[in-house]
Amino acid sequence: MNKILAVNSGSSSFKYKLFSLDDESVLASGLGDRIGIDGSSFEMKLADGTKHKEKLDLPNQETAVQVLLDWLKKYDVIKDVKEIVGVGHRIVNGAEVFPDSTIITKDNLHKIFELTDFAPLHNPAEGRGIEAFMKILPDVPQVGVFDTSFHQSMDAVHYMYSLPYEYYEKYQARKFGAHGTSIRYVSKRTAEIMGKDLKELKMIICHLGSGASVTAVKDGKCYDTSMGFSPLAGITMGTRSGDVDPSVLQHIMKMEGMTDFNEMISILNRKSGLLGISGLSSDMRDISANADKNPRARLAREIFINRIVRYIGGYAAEMNGVDAIVFTAGIGEHSDIVRAGVLKNFGYLGLKFDAEANKTNGEKFISTPDSKVAALIVPTDEELMIERDVVRLAHLK
Amino acid sequence: MNKILAVNSGSSSFKYKLFSLDDESVLASGLGDRIGIDGSSFEMKLADGTKHKEKLDLPNQETAVQVLLDWLKKYDVIKDVKEIVGVGHRIVNGAEVFPDSTIITKDNLHKIFELTDFAPLHNPAEGRGIEAFMKILPDVPQVGVFDTSFHQSMDAVHYMYSLPYEYYEKYQARKFGAHGTSIRYVSKRTAEIMGKDLKELKMIICHLGSGASVTAVKDGKCYDTSMGFSPLAGITMGTRSGDVDPSVLQHIMKMEGMTDFNEMISILNRKSGLLGISGLSSDMRDISANADKNPRARLAREIFINRIVRYIGGYAAEMNGVDAIVFTAGIGEHSDIVRAGVLKNFGYLGLKFDAEANKTNGEKFISTPDSKVAALIVPTDEELMIERDVVRLAHLK
Repeated sequence: MNKILAVNSGSSSFKYKLFSLDDESVLASGLGDRIGIDGSSFEMKLADGTKHKEKLDLPNQETAVQVLLDWLKKYDVIKDVKEIVGVGHRIVNGAEVFPDSTIITKDNLHKIFELTDFAPLHNPAEGRGIEAFMKILPDVPQVGVFDTSFHQSMDAVHYMYSLPYEYYEKYQARKFGAHGTSIRYVSKRTAEIMGKDLKELKMIICHLGSGASVTAVKDGKCYDTSMGFSPLAGITMGTRSGDVDPSVLQHIMKMEGMTDFNEMISILNRKSGLLGISGLSSDMRDISANADKNPRARLAREIFINRIVRYIGGYAAEMNGVDAIVFTAGIGEHSDIVRAGVLKNFGYLGLKFDAEANKTNGEKFISTPDSKVAALIVPTDEELMIERDVVRLAHLK
Repeated sequence: MNKILAVNSGSSSFKYKLFSLDDESVLASGLGDRIGIDGSSFEMKLADGTKHKEKLDLPNQETAVQVLLDWLKKYDVIKDVKEIVGVGHRIVNGAEVFPDSTIITKDNLHKIFELTDFAPLHNPAEGRGIEAFMKILPDVPQVGVFDTSFHQSMDAVHYMYSLPYEYYEKYQARKFGAHGTSIRYVSKRTAEIMGKDLKELKMIICHLGSGASVTAVKDGKCYDTSMGFSPLAGITMGTRSGDVDPSVLQHIMKMEGMTDFNEMISILNRKSGLLGISGLSSDMRDISANADKNPRARLAREIFINRIVRYIGGYAAEMNGVDAIVFTAGIGEHSDIVRAGVLKNFGYLGLKFDAEANKTNGEKFISTPDSKVAALIVPTDEELMIERDVVRLAHLK
């Protein structure tokens, strides 16, 4: 029975999920952690729910890949590594070079490294992850699945900044977006749940995790998205500021005696967002647990909700209407308070919120059947989307 | 017959308008130009339409004020300077210090200079303008009218950035907005035209000049506005970028070998917006004249329109609906193409655009009588608003 592996490589970790090619079921999942660092470990969860975890020396990605294959055999998930017929890799930024998922070979792998400027923390680690798999499984197709590809359908009106045009021509200074693989999965799934053709729907997908974005999907394509050149822009996030007037950064830098803009950017990425406003936590669960007694925690949640509302409203206007507003990812799938806070603003669109349905989580409508605009929770599944791209591009079915 | 003077002092100019206290009619208007620079001049337009202009030596604001008073007498607008019973001054930033227009005396004038960090080019020049009038008309009340005051009604959810909270506490790093005096005038006038109580209306005012902003007005107060800590943020403007991902600025600075963020901010203020995208002009008239044959001019206009659409949609959502969308200032009052481009996106709100009415300018509805959301052109009059504030605060009526 053939299998597909979906992989997400970080600088010192890699997460994996093994799918059955036949029925898309998950056979094993887990991660290698602290690769190349003291205290590395490996873990695997099997289809029957059993979990295995060991402290193991993992000096590099290749050792971790080898451990993965050994464990898959050890725990009877596969009999032979030849059962693995394709590997899909999540890549954060494909810029304008990769408008779709692509089979990665030794001939085009360098392009992923060349895009390092667009995702300094991610692309190099992901490229090295592919290299490791190429060495150990040299005959298996490796597919790069880019978080930015889905957003390449945006037109210039939406992806261009109002900056001197030469910066776009010379440096690709434009909006790329992120979470594309998730949005692609969720938008298709939403159309299925609604029993409609994806191409006939105007959707707004709120991918709300520690990174968070809002995306307008029209004709099954990205129409506009809140993240920008990098995942820093858009709505408020766990530790990221989202949109901010550059002038206020100039003011802060002057007052703080800060001269290096990279330092400011680091603060915007790591110390801002829910964490910065609340001074408490970057995690919405902590924020919500404290919102009643801590005014700054409450403010953080209200600002988070407000920015989502503003983007949804903005995208409804850009598309001249919206058929469905969808919540996904950690906060989107699990915070009824955030969903309710957002949706209470859309009565003017004829959206009728189903407060009862919203109280629990899971894939479903949270608007009433007679609502003019549908609202849904649709849990995301980026790995399944990666698996499907491997099948499609390596012609495995 | 008593008169009120409304003044807008720049670093090397001042504009003025003299109103009759009785009936708010304009008796004289004009400017002193290139004050303190070679080639200075003074001009005055009278109520009968005649214009006077002379090259004159104007070494400082005080000379210009003295010339103004001399000319008002010379052209029989006043018989005695005592007829001028109040002077109102436009001030760009009053921060949290001035939540309303205020009588400025020697005791509080320093506060305007202390806010220099919030409007480096404007506040000091405006403060010096007040000083000049205080010297020459020592017994006449001087009133500061702040572009930011109207926006002080925003709540923290809207004025706070998602930055470390201490930057707000220590440096007032928050949203202030601008164009407040214009929005205040236009929102009141819109309610009059609609024959409704201002406090019952949800409005979105698009002040579209070379500086441009979109403001949500609810209960007669500012609910949210697109400009930020400074007038750089929000929608695309003549030479200003509006919203931009700070990360793309980091990328550009790295590629350009630029280390001083102030240099980047200067580019965002002076070389971006319509000018940056088109490479042609910062003026919408030039952009529109070239839009058919020049793709970048067309793109600049489309981006300008798109950003306005997004903000209107966003604010409609924040207020859970909108009763009126209003266009004012240079482009708003004169570009039928921009107005049409914006309003074609709002069919989903039940807005019925009156294309015929839109073809010409002037105060009027540009939506049909059965439109669910009204759309209007309302020419702004900041000077009249300043005049009224002088009357109100100096108790002149």
